[in-house]
Amino acid sequence: MLDPNKYPVLSKVELPQDIRGLDIHQLKQLCADIREYLIDTISEIGGHFGGGLGTVELTVALHKVFSTPFDQIVWDTGHQAYPHKILTGRKDKLGTIRQLNGISGFLKRSESEYDTFGAGHASTSISAALGMAVARDMKKESRKIVAIIGDGAMTGGMAYEAMNNSGIIKSNLIVVLNDNNMAIGPNVWQISNYFTEMIAHPDYNKFKGQIWELTGKLDHFGDRLRKIAGRLEHGIKAVITPGILFEALGFRYFGPVNGHNVHQLIKIFEQVKDLKGPIIVHIHTQKGKGYKPAEGDEQRLHAATPFDKLTGEALKKSGSVPSYTSIFGNALVEIVKDYPEVIGITGAMGDGTGLDILQKAFPHNYFDVGIAEAHAVTFAAGLATQGIIPVVAVYSTFLQRAFDQIIHDVALQKLHVVFALDRAGLVGADGPTHHGAFDITYLRMIPGMVIMAPKDEAELRNLLFTAISYKNGPVAIRYPRGSALGVPLKEGFELIEIGKAELLSGGDDVALLALGSMVNYAMKASDKLKSEGISCDVINMRFAKPLDTAMLDYIADKHSKIITLEENTLVGGFGSGVLEYFAEKNYKNDVLRIGLPDHFVDHGTQAELHHLLGIDPDGIAEKVKLFHRSKSVNHNIEV
Amino acid sequence: MLDPNKYPVLSKVELPQDIRGLDIHQLKQLCADIREYLIDTISEIGGHFGGGLGTVELTVALHKVFSTPFDQIVWDTGHQAYPHKILTGRKDKLGTIRQLNGISGFLKRSESEYDTFGAGHASTSISAALGMAVARDMKKESRKIVAIIGDGAMTGGMAYEAMNNSGIIKSNLIVVLNDNNMAIGPNVWQISNYFTEMIAHPDYNKFKGQIWELTGKLDHFGDRLRKIAGRLEHGIKAVITPGILFEALGFRYFGPVNGHNVHQLIKIFEQVKDLKGPIIVHIHTQKGKGYKPAEGDEQRLHAATPFDKLTGEALKKSGSVPSYTSIFGNALVEIVKDYPEVIGITGAMGDGTGLDILQKAFPHNYFDVGIAEAHAVTFAAGLATQGIIPVVAVYSTFLQRAFDQIIHDVALQKLHVVFALDRAGLVGADGPTHHGAFDITYLRMIPGMVIMAPKDEAELRNLLFTAISYKNGPVAIRYPRGSALGVPLKEGFELIEIGKAELLSGGDDVALLALGSMVNYAMKASDKLKSEGISCDVINMRFAKPLDTAMLDYIADKHSKIITLEENTLVGGFGSGVLEYFAEKNYKNDVLRIGLPDHFVDHGTQAELHHLLGIDPDGIAEKVKLFHRSKSVNHNIEV
Repeated sequence: MLDPNKYPVLSKVELPQDIRGLDIHQLKQLCADIREYLIDTISEIGGHFGGGLGTVELTVALHKVFSTPFDQIVWDTGHQAYPHKILTGRKDKLGTIRQLNGISGFLKRSESEYDTFGAGHASTSISAALGMAVARDMKKESRKIVAIIGDGAMTGGMAYEAMNNSGIIKSNLIVVLNDNNMAIGPNVWQISNYFTEMIAHPDYNKFKGQIWELTGKLDHFGDRLRKIAGRLEHGIKAVITPGILFEALGFRYFGPVNGHNVHQLIKIFEQVKDLKGPIIVHIHTQKGKGYKPAEGDEQRLHAATPFDKLTGEALKKSGSVPSYTSIFGNALVEIVKDYPEVIGITGAMGDGTGLDILQKAFPHNYFDVGIAEAHAVTFAAGLATQGIIPVVAVYSTFLQRAFDQIIHDVALQKLHVVFALDRAGLVGADGPTHHGAFDITYLRMIPGMVIMAPKDEAELRNLLFTAISYKNGPVAIRYPRGSALGVPLKEGFELIEIGKAELLSGGDDVALLALGSMVNYAMKASDKLKSEGISCDVINMRFAKPLDTAMLDYIADKHSKIITLEENTLVGGFGSGVLEYFAEKNYKNDVLRIGLPDHFVDHGTQAELHHLLGIDPDGIAEKVKLFHRSKSVNHNIEV
Repeated sequence: MLDPNKYPVLSKVELPQDIRGLDIHQLKQLCADIREYLIDTISEIGGHFGGGLGTVELTVALHKVFSTPFDQIVWDTGHQAYPHKILTGRKDKLGTIRQLNGISGFLKRSESEYDTFGAGHASTSISAALGMAVARDMKKESRKIVAIIGDGAMTGGMAYEAMNNSGIIKSNLIVVLNDNNMAIGPNVWQISNYFTEMIAHPDYNKFKGQIWELTGKLDHFGDRLRKIAGRLEHGIKAVITPGILFEALGFRYFGPVNGHNVHQLIKIFEQVKDLKGPIIVHIHTQKGKGYKPAEGDEQRLHAATPFDKLTGEALKKSGSVPSYTSIFGNALVEIVKDYPEVIGITGAMGDGTGLDILQKAFPHNYFDVGIAEAHAVTFAAGLATQGIIPVVAVYSTFLQRAFDQIIHDVALQKLHVVFALDRAGLVGADGPTHHGAFDITYLRMIPGMVIMAPKDEAELRNLLFTAISYKNGPVAIRYPRGSALGVPLKEGFELIEIGKAELLSGGDDVALLALGSMVNYAMKASDKLKSEGISCDVINMRFAKPLDTAMLDYIADKHSKIITLEENTLVGGFGSGVLEYFAEKNYKNDVLRIGLPDHFVDHGTQAELHHLLGIDPDGIAEKVKLFHRSKSVNHNIEV
């Protein structure tokens, strides 16, 4: 229950129906309440912050004008949907957001009937909304469909594909372009630049003045010419707004509208809601609106850890151990110093990938292409044909967007492109849309791909250097989200032999073949097991492809029981690669594969999820113990 | 050597440098020669035809104006590049195109230094060209970069992502929009509709007339107002050409130009080649230009089998056995009759996927979204949230473009979308860009995905019906390119239990677990093996996921030697699924996996490629024989 003194209107609102009878003053107070409640709650627990503060008025206006959940609202990406969650029966759960068993940080169909379409990746809303609109037409229903998409998501090709298709299909559909001129990173949407430049251009106002002047002069020509002049004005207006782009795609354009004026927003939605065909409403908002520290530094509060409400300073100082992200960014800067032909490419995630460090040091070697992973990879391929060495820095989950481009444009042509996959494995609070659960499988099947996974930050540096030095084709390096291990770093870089594993500690009972983040866990599990009388060989496999077959031969010969460990789906992953090799050689060892299950994993902290899945050191030790005791099932074996 | 009487100019041209000294009359004759040579050659051997006839003048003009190979031309998709091959040292090899050991039907870097970037999938050229342009700038070189992209490929989101990024980066780059208003299928590009409608609109000409009239009236106002009026005209022109879209994306727009007037093309390329920043040149061409039967039926001659030069009729009548494609299309029509909530979605491949059959029967249940697979899948997901059952019909290789959407928008939300994957396995003449070599692996790793593969066309019908009836999540059905087996078809449909395999023929020596196209080959191999004294159990596995574990238990218990067969990469494929299950159960059988190798497979006929890879019946029998004789390697097994 919310305190009615602190939140006079919000305390009385549970569902959208409760706001439809409110007058404009109450609605404004509701917006103020929501903003306050967001700041109070998120400052304590952390979460995506700026986006939600920017959409308070929009959310109120949408739920006021449209009869949700009968009418359907489709949010893009979902960072912006916190106010939507507050207004749709989840305000009391806001404090649990992104926590284990709490509500999701994104839209989620299973969470609420108001969440019509789940979204964690960008640019999907218009496609999904068009599908709903066509279904509505087929079923002869009357519901309205509204998609909300940010200017950042508008850099994604899917949004354009969907708008083009909407123009062809012509179903009734309202798209709200929530333009905060910011995206996740700095502006990468040229359309927006075009608009801004046009307004700012000295000729624009002069030209506009000349038109009015002409119109005046034409006065004594009588009605007919005045009408023509009026039309010309209209034509000019069309040229000087971004509307024309959308008109060409078959949309009717309305805007721009101030997205923080709830009255204006309600008016325009009332105006367009019964119009036919695809409509776009362009609104301007400010990320972090109403919270000074966030307005001043939108980028920093895109995804926030808990912070001080007054100053905006993070409460939980990140420890002295740097993240893999920053280790990567700094290593790349060191490499670019000596190898100016190396460049970094990001899809609007300079901050998240650590490439912002490169941008500061070598701005000309840094390319932010927008939320456009498909283009990013083929752009890299084009660069690679000319001897430039592109490092595409991307979250594991987002690289899925460029799967075909990796195969068709990079690997088939054996081009030397380096993929730096941050957030490989479970990412924690962002949950199933963001886990990097699949990359080993989907990259391993690509001919000629090299896949590396460092055991710690020192090895990340050396593997990055090795990947950049390797010239024979594509290389991927995957590393986890969050803090590295805190091992000491050496000056300079070491080349590591491609496909070479490393024996870390010796034992005779079982062998643990571990990859990447699992090496450290395997070492800890090995310590536990030792105290229970089971001694392990622990191997840092380093490469999911090519496998170190000499090491595998040695281990297969030495151990009857072998365990593979990876933070990737067990379907087709590193462990399956070991099974494939053993089948080729007809080895008969017992193999236990430990990794991610064949289902989507929910959100929670990384530690919580590892524990739940039994892939933390304790869980691993337990599994190995059982496996060590187990008997093989041998049918008809001819030895 | 070409006959100089028949091809007076082409016979003297080997490389682009040979055409740079030609005068306009010789260039026109060269165009005529190329067209004639294309028709002569392709009518005999078959190949993509219409696209090349449309780009004869463009190709001549480009190689005349630009200093290739120093200047770099990047073709999109590659169907349109036959004239380019003829002019760049490969005219004598044109007769080998798409044949085993012959030249590729697409661009290929390893084939010629004039092929700057390989392309079989659409919409990649601007991304690649921008990469080359940025590399050129970094290396301070002076070469020109030209990308050619069709209007069909412009429906792909990647093209938009790349244009947007070009506008931001501002490197010198020329994009030629080759607009034949056709794409692969009928028009699906709304921008083009917009332009056409505007020109056709009665108001347009009236309005245009009024502007001229106004301009006349303004004459006596003197210079200043005339200037303003001139500007207004310019503004109006901007509104009424598609140029504005490209201008908004940061390109300077030139056109439209008649793409069959070589003189005009040369003029415009000379005009723009030294301009700064991104330039777009819009040209209009006609697919099949200059060959009457092709002009009349562009769609049919997109990919042609050998045909009669005079009439355009195919010489090799396709046999009485229908293709899997048409079986699929007809079955879908039968199902839609009873289930009007079922719809078909294609990405500009109505003809290729058999959905054109649905379009004719039930136009309202047919959706062509353009070359936009990512949108297609999320659009389908949106439909599925409303109880519509979308069947996305797509080539296996093109579904790679929607990989993330399958995971994030469909599977994560457990939505019932059916994926009909045509051209799964090796496709033959189209080669490595088009082989469907990966789908089992990349779909099998997705939680909740069901993957079916019918053994013949009768089973395709039943599995399609089963997939549409299954309501618990996504289902994929994969089937090969080309003729089905010719088995008799029954009326109506049968439901097949999800995950249920079928024992086809019995034997005690080895077991052949075959999937899809490999079932028929396994049966034939089994017959051969029988005559050599090896008797086989042949199992039609039907499902790559979920596997029939009861059948696997039975087979593992009965046979020491088990062979898996699939037309998919062996990395992470169906056979790996069997290994994973055996490892879980700790079964120790010998398993031989037969399938596609871990390298890209070149072009050739399907039969030739199957033979070369040893996956035709003879090759399979040979492998099984060796395997049957082999001994296991058993290290330290505790039984």
